[in-house]
Amino acid sequence: MRKKVNAAILIIGNEILSGRTQDKNIAFISNWLNTNCGISVQEVRIIPDIEKIIIENVNSLSKNFTYLFTTGGIGPTHDDITAQSISKAFKVKYEYHPEAYGILEKYYGKKKFNDGRKKMAKMPKGSKLIYNPASAAPGFLIKNVFSLPGVPSILNSMIENCKRYLVKGLKVHSKTLNLYTVESNIAKELGQIQKKYKQFIDIGSYPFFRLGKIGVAIVTRSTSLSKLKSVNKQLMRLVKLKKIKILKI
Amino acid sequence: MRKKVNAAILIIGNEILSGRTQDKNIAFISNWLNTNCGISVQEVRIIPDIEKIIIENVNSLSKNFTYLFTTGGIGPTHDDITAQSISKAFKVKYEYHPEAYGILEKYYGKKKFNDGRKKMAKMPKGSKLIYNPASAAPGFLIKNVFSLPGVPSILNSMIENCKRYLVKGLKVHSKTLNLYTVESNIAKELGQIQKKYKQFIDIGSYPFFRLGKIGVAIVTRSTSLSKLKSVNKQLMRLVKLKKIKILKI
Repeated sequence: MRKKVNAAILIIGNEILSGRTQDKNIAFISNWLNTNCGISVQEVRIIPDIEKIIIENVNSLSKNFTYLFTTGGIGPTHDDITAQSISKAFKVKYEYHPEAYGILEKYYGKKKFNDGRKKMAKMPKGSKLIYNPASAAPGFLIKNVFSLPGVPSILNSMIENCKRYLVKGLKVHSKTLNLYTVESNIAKELGQIQKKYKQFIDIGSYPFFRLGKIGVAIVTRSTSLSKLKSVNKQLMRLVKLKKIKILKI
Repeated sequence: MRKKVNAAILIIGNEILSGRTQDKNIAFISNWLNTNCGISVQEVRIIPDIEKIIIENVNSLSKNFTYLFTTGGIGPTHDDITAQSISKAFKVKYEYHPEAYGILEKYYGKKKFNDGRKKMAKMPKGSKLIYNPASAAPGFLIKNVFSLPGVPSILNSMIENCKRYLVKGLKVHSKTLNLYTVESNIAKELGQIQKKYKQFIDIGSYPFFRLGKIGVAIVTRSTSLSKLKSVNKQLMRLVKLKKIKILKI
């Protein structure tokens, strides 16, 4: 049996912390890891562009999880300090990566390859490149840390290039039942089912509003498809018993 | 002078971690705290519905920041374990809050006030209530921790009721310049300006795409309005010098 593989995400950037920018990378990365690699994200942190704080968080998260994905702070400006901070966290040199330098020099042309652009070729010594089909400047992998940019469209274009470095986990299956009822109408029975299947299934209950009606999405998740099916049979019995309408999407 | 007041946000919920649900509360709370209270959010964490992990994070974040806001996990179902976890973190009893019990009993009516609904009146002993105009079930404040629900529309309706418990910080002013250029065209000069005003101003640089054109948003933030103005004068000189077009929104 393959072992459980997990990951953490570290979003680096004052613009997300201040609420100026709505983060889109967390849901994207988490979904992608789940669906494509069977890897579940177990913790996310959002922190400011401050070297000491980046170092502390890279050290603790890369130690506690199989993989760490960072986003943001690898561009050409003064507030992009992720690469040098990760170098310090891992006590390796922060220097030009020859291949990255070549890619960027070719992309911009020798004349327009200024200091800001050159900075994007600097990374922790020993990094592997994560190629960037959208805008050339590569991300990097050092130890178990994948460093990606913060701009969602660029990040999205690069994520497939992380795949070959990842050990896949067990695929997590999930099923959603959208019910026209309120949580407290089924809370007791749900709790009993969850208790019975504690080891195998994770049952979540999430209220929703849709076209003026309220409902609850019951999400069951498990690495065992057969256990998932038998829990969903029990849920359907509960739905019938309580005469609850199902919303089909 | 009023001291710098800060905050952390702890999002509790498997649905956000798994990428199933796109978080909307982080940007909302952070913006609200900034604009209404002069409080800046310094760290955000997203964690699963696991008691031990909630306790660890409540303890460390409530110690390191002036305020901690938690969202999620205070509903009626088995996976709502925020209130009991915070009780354990602070080593206080987890029990019915008489006023909350009264509010909920009145809201549902004695007959429909079942165990799941009663659970929403249980909270750490000594909590103050955060009233909920949308759906009755109150949040709570214990020590420096504000516990709010995860459903954005309900959270939004409650946030004003946190205000009277908050010590306000210094208002942070900000100005955004949207420029039709690329980061690496101005990276060097921006870095010089940031260095000069390091103590007073925070300058962020964020690429954007708009109607097929690329650009950079330069965001300056400071508690000093006069310093903010003089930095923006310097930025305008740079814009003129480099013949960069400004996007007016």
